[in-house]
Amino acid sequence: MSNDYVAMWKELGLNLEAHDALLSVLGNGYKDIYMSQKNRPEGMGYFDFVMSEVHGLRIKELMDERAQGRKIIGSYCVFVPEEIVLAANATLVGLCSGADFAIEEVEKYLPRNTCALIKSSFGFKLGKVCPYLESADMVVGENTCDGKKKGYESLGNLIDNLYVMDLPQMKSEQGRALLRGEYERFRSAVEKLTGVAITAESLSKAIKIVNAKRSAIHRMSELRKAVPAPISGLDALLANQVFFYDNPARFTESVNKICDELETRIKEKRGVVPENRPRVLISGCPMAVPNWKLPWIIETSGAVIVGEESCVGERGTRNLTDESAQSVDKMMDAITDRYFQVDCAIFTPNQARLSHIDEMAREYKADGVIHYGLQFCQPYIMESIPVERALEEKNIPALRIETDYGMEDAGQLKTRVEAFIEQLR
Amino acid sequence: MSNDYVAMWKELGLNLEAHDALLSVLGNGYKDIYMSQKNRPEGMGYFDFVMSEVHGLRIKELMDERAQGRKIIGSYCVFVPEEIVLAANATLVGLCSGADFAIEEVEKYLPRNTCALIKSSFGFKLGKVCPYLESADMVVGENTCDGKKKGYESLGNLIDNLYVMDLPQMKSEQGRALLRGEYERFRSAVEKLTGVAITAESLSKAIKIVNAKRSAIHRMSELRKAVPAPISGLDALLANQVFFYDNPARFTESVNKICDELETRIKEKRGVVPENRPRVLISGCPMAVPNWKLPWIIETSGAVIVGEESCVGERGTRNLTDESAQSVDKMMDAITDRYFQVDCAIFTPNQARLSHIDEMAREYKADGVIHYGLQFCQPYIMESIPVERALEEKNIPALRIETDYGMEDAGQLKTRVEAFIEQLR
Repeated sequence: MSNDYVAMWKELGLNLEAHDALLSVLGNGYKDIYMSQKNRPEGMGYFDFVMSEVHGLRIKELMDERAQGRKIIGSYCVFVPEEIVLAANATLVGLCSGADFAIEEVEKYLPRNTCALIKSSFGFKLGKVCPYLESADMVVGENTCDGKKKGYESLGNLIDNLYVMDLPQMKSEQGRALLRGEYERFRSAVEKLTGVAITAESLSKAIKIVNAKRSAIHRMSELRKAVPAPISGLDALLANQVFFYDNPARFTESVNKICDELETRIKEKRGVVPENRPRVLISGCPMAVPNWKLPWIIETSGAVIVGEESCVGERGTRNLTDESAQSVDKMMDAITDRYFQVDCAIFTPNQARLSHIDEMAREYKADGVIHYGLQFCQPYIMESIPVERALEEKNIPALRIETDYGMEDAGQLKTRVEAFIEQLR
Repeated sequence: MSNDYVAMWKELGLNLEAHDALLSVLGNGYKDIYMSQKNRPEGMGYFDFVMSEVHGLRIKELMDERAQGRKIIGSYCVFVPEEIVLAANATLVGLCSGADFAIEEVEKYLPRNTCALIKSSFGFKLGKVCPYLESADMVVGENTCDGKKKGYESLGNLIDNLYVMDLPQMKSEQGRALLRGEYERFRSAVEKLTGVAITAESLSKAIKIVNAKRSAIHRMSELRKAVPAPISGLDALLANQVFFYDNPARFTESVNKICDELETRIKEKRGVVPENRPRVLISGCPMAVPNWKLPWIIETSGAVIVGEESCVGERGTRNLTDESAQSVDKMMDAITDRYFQVDCAIFTPNQARLSHIDEMAREYKADGVIHYGLQFCQPYIMESIPVERALEEKNIPALRIETDYGMEDAGQLKTRVEAFIEQLR
């Protein structure tokens, strides 16, 4: 990245030395994992550029937006409605939580037995290496799992602009009312932050922008159903990851451009890998940049990933917000209805997720499902048992993986994954 | 226990062989831990009897109640309002979750990294050794922590009468509305189960019965503030444990009888241990029968426990339900207000708990606080870090313990506890 950014990072209060080290690891990891892939769609060049500038140009853009009075809102979860943020002329960005950092410092605030994703969000703060977090005017936490819920109490002592959103635990009428109320409260908070009153016009426009982003991903997902698979799981995951960072319109355009290319590939029956390569569906915990460990192991072990049942994937993007409402109030209803469908494991019961995994396995023609659980993520680790049982009942091979961000278990994971893939041939 | 009970246990579908083994372990544990104590109040003889008949006479009573058409409701949590149950002419009992059982079978349903309390509730079901569970007409689960919330989804497949109560995560207006709504839903469910309509008269009476039970415990707690301590922590814990099992009126009477005795002791300046014995407050996870491991280690290491900041202790019993309401509706409000004050770690933020620990440490003249966290209990383990920090700021020595129901770490725990107590002298 250009040296021009150093002043910006300094201004954001980053620890330059630690940040350099992080960028170097990130860059090398990307080169090893992404750039070594064969037959990538040319359009992925855009994402390669995005990743090479993830702490550079994108941050510069956010800083330029801020200079023009636009506010930046950071989030750690798909339950934070981008529609509301955009409608108030603000920008929503996902915050860093995909790599271990400053572990020793983190464990002064969090128990060792906390999932890597939560530890990572603290590590990026304590290590002062997340320019997204440092440039955010508001950081939104949310009461999803116990780990995050209690973690935000401590994070709130480390940053001065944390806003905590409550979430329901059941998809009951009362649960919906709670979510509706919380989105209303969030709207007020965002309006207060930006000084911009959300109107029917601005909210309607925002709904369309976010839907377009999701629709582009839907189009890509649809194309991944083809045999042979036209794009690697790693590349598709990257698109799903950048979904949380990039300018929405540009993201939509870039994904659609890749889809044009994939359509040509499909017409010409050209796959990213040979047709006989076992197809795997990943299900479970979200994978934030640069957490590419498991997909990388899977795709270098002879399989291709055809779908992600994940927050960073189809769980997060599958539903659109209804666009027909005319008033802010009705639009807020539509937004609530949309997010209330997300079948996160924090909900009980969560039968819809089991159905979705089964449906995805069939539609994406997966030969097997690998359940990805972050160690100590109770909701997903606990659900992995009934998920595995339900898949077995349908004779869909399943493998449960429990891991963290460390590379210590990579060899052991590879052995297990290879054995699983062998069984799918 | 008498052989007369065998037929009853058989009728309840218990695994007699496994149940015998359990009772033998329980009996020996009780003898070693409880009966070896010196200077016990005579009134504890009642609790010795209760414990010797915990799966016998008490179950016989419940079966007799059932024979007369009364319903038995089982619960795992202090958020289930006994007032509502009693008002519908039903009986509430706490369900077994204090010992490891059928671990191998349990781990087919729950991840290994699940807290011992939740595993235990499954173990008692899968091992068929909990006569309370088997005699319950309704079992109430509740959305407290992730572990329990997701665990009940699987437990619901093992028992056919599980009722799940939703709970809020924040003490907001919406959170209170959710709790109020859930208590209303619970009232309807209990009325449906019992066929008894709850009236202002029956509910008012029930509120008074439960308050009397709590007041008896308050009286005992108040007496534990004396120096020297008139009763051991183990004995006081037992009273708090039996609180969940016994007939309420008889329990109240028995605790008050012990209190009369303690008052005499205090007047005569007779302690259960010498005055110079360090005084310890326990704070954290609940301890269900027969989970006496940590208190036993503490009190055989030269300290006396003077209070329990726990669900099985002051967190669970400290607040009374206001008795002044006249209508069922207003009483339901009062019940909601009462339970909404419980400062369980599932709430965020939960600053009230920190204040309560500090207040208890001062009022009970504790020389130090031992935080008891069940391994993998995220809410309490996560709160233990700010708890320790807050205590350190007030110069109150604190020790964080993380353990399970196994005895493998008893030696190591004893070494740590002894070192901590040494530091309090």
